[in-house]
Amino acid sequence: MIIDKYAPIGVFDSGVGGLTVVRELMRNLPQENIVYFGDTARVPYGNKSKETVLRYSRQIIRFLETKDVKAIVVACNTASALAMDTIEKEINIPIIGVVIPGVHTALRTTRNNRIGVIATDSTIKSNLYQTLLRSNNSEITVFGKACPLFVPLVEEGWTKDRITYEIACRYLDDVLDKDIDTLIMGCTHYPLMRSLLKKVVGDDVTLVNPAYETSVALKKLLEDLNLQNPGDFVKEKKFQCGRYRFFASDAVERFNTFADTVLPCEVESAELVQIEDF
Amino acid sequence: MIIDKYAPIGVFDSGVGGLTVVRELMRNLPQENIVYFGDTARVPYGNKSKETVLRYSRQIIRFLETKDVKAIVVACNTASALAMDTIEKEINIPIIGVVIPGVHTALRTTRNNRIGVIATDSTIKSNLYQTLLRSNNSEITVFGKACPLFVPLVEEGWTKDRITYEIACRYLDDVLDKDIDTLIMGCTHYPLMRSLLKKVVGDDVTLVNPAYETSVALKKLLEDLNLQNPGDFVKEKKFQCGRYRFFASDAVERFNTFADTVLPCEVESAELVQIEDF
Repeated sequence: MIIDKYAPIGVFDSGVGGLTVVRELMRNLPQENIVYFGDTARVPYGNKSKETVLRYSRQIIRFLETKDVKAIVVACNTASALAMDTIEKEINIPIIGVVIPGVHTALRTTRNNRIGVIATDSTIKSNLYQTLLRSNNSEITVFGKACPLFVPLVEEGWTKDRITYEIACRYLDDVLDKDIDTLIMGCTHYPLMRSLLKKVVGDDVTLVNPAYETSVALKKLLEDLNLQNPGDFVKEKKFQCGRYRFFASDAVERFNTFADTVLPCEVESAELVQIEDF
Repeated sequence: MIIDKYAPIGVFDSGVGGLTVVRELMRNLPQENIVYFGDTARVPYGNKSKETVLRYSRQIIRFLETKDVKAIVVACNTASALAMDTIEKEINIPIIGVVIPGVHTALRTTRNNRIGVIATDSTIKSNLYQTLLRSNNSEITVFGKACPLFVPLVEEGWTKDRITYEIACRYLDDVLDKDIDTLIMGCTHYPLMRSLLKKVVGDDVTLVNPAYETSVALKKLLEDLNLQNPGDFVKEKKFQCGRYRFFASDAVERFNTFADTVLPCEVESAELVQIEDF
């Protein structure tokens, strides 16, 4: 199969959180085109079962394939945790999740082999981070903590708020007591409260941002496969460089508002998709 | 059309919140059979568009009709606010939402014609409470406030927590400044934090619980239509009295756990339904 280098990268998430991954892709791979899909009609995935998340992910991949994407980024920790292992066997283009890049960075970062993971309830219960970290290094001890209030707090805009700080202290108290030196922000919303989390964990703990690590890993993957967008302007080509398109399954206006606060550049309004039709 | 008095009442909600309505139905209409559906695969509705909530509600009503229900309770404020006016024209059995009973009680309760409403973002933005309250009495002034953190706080179990108290004070500050004497808890989860809310609003403000008011209104509706379950045991009848069945579109175990904390009696485990097939 010949893949068009100029084709866009497909990125999807359960909602708007994956825009933190898009932000890193825009910064680190500025020549790439991006098609983003946010499943705002069915958000959140974090409290849904593996079967449901897998079914939703397959629908979204079928939609992204209609946009001729050359690679797919699963910018949702829950979908990466629950659906990646199955869907990567079902498609013919490169696919990358946000979990593995975060895991590799955490393994390189830790000095004392004690790593914390904060994420949604489903991601923590899936034990995926724990399994992956320990399968790479059996000396590692992992301490997971579900933080279900963080996403609504970020969406409320309270990312620098005293109440959010107090809630973060309560959530992280146990994990910090375990003497971790590395903490993975295992949910795409969490980098948006990074500075507050940094205050809570202190200077001795390194925060790992899987969104950033994913952009680095994708860059390497495209180079290895010789699939980087050359960034030259070729008139007859179907795709132009650095073009971004956004799709959502519901509440497009709210999507646009959130996108404006997260992304480093002005983008066109999101388009509505009936994702159940795919 | 002849409706079977022994048939169950169908109750639905976007998730587990509607169980607070079931709780009131069990207490106030103990002879009635209940079939409950919680759309846990697509919860929450509060941030979804009118079109999507309407589509989901129609699917659920088609499912409930397969259970031969004699009446339907829309135990979801968002669905009551966004979909009721359309779906009540489309079905042949009585249907009642949680919004109107709460509105009528608030109108009877207020002395100074200043009423507050707390609810999800969509319910507040729909302006339904404001419109209904004022269409009954144009002297009424309504102060609405979206409280998006309350649902995750209740689901976290922090219903008597100092942090929840602080968040409630912040949300309600503006509304209380408006000298309201009545506050409608316009989201099914909120009655579960009733005692904390009572502390925040003080003795001068009456809290209206639409779940309770709905059970009273349904009782009257069934009496008026001569549709109450007689409560006698009739062997050849298809339905027995006081029987409860629960269905959910996902994460049935989490549903059961929540149901155990909310309902006044032991109930059978929820059954899984692929609601998109309806």
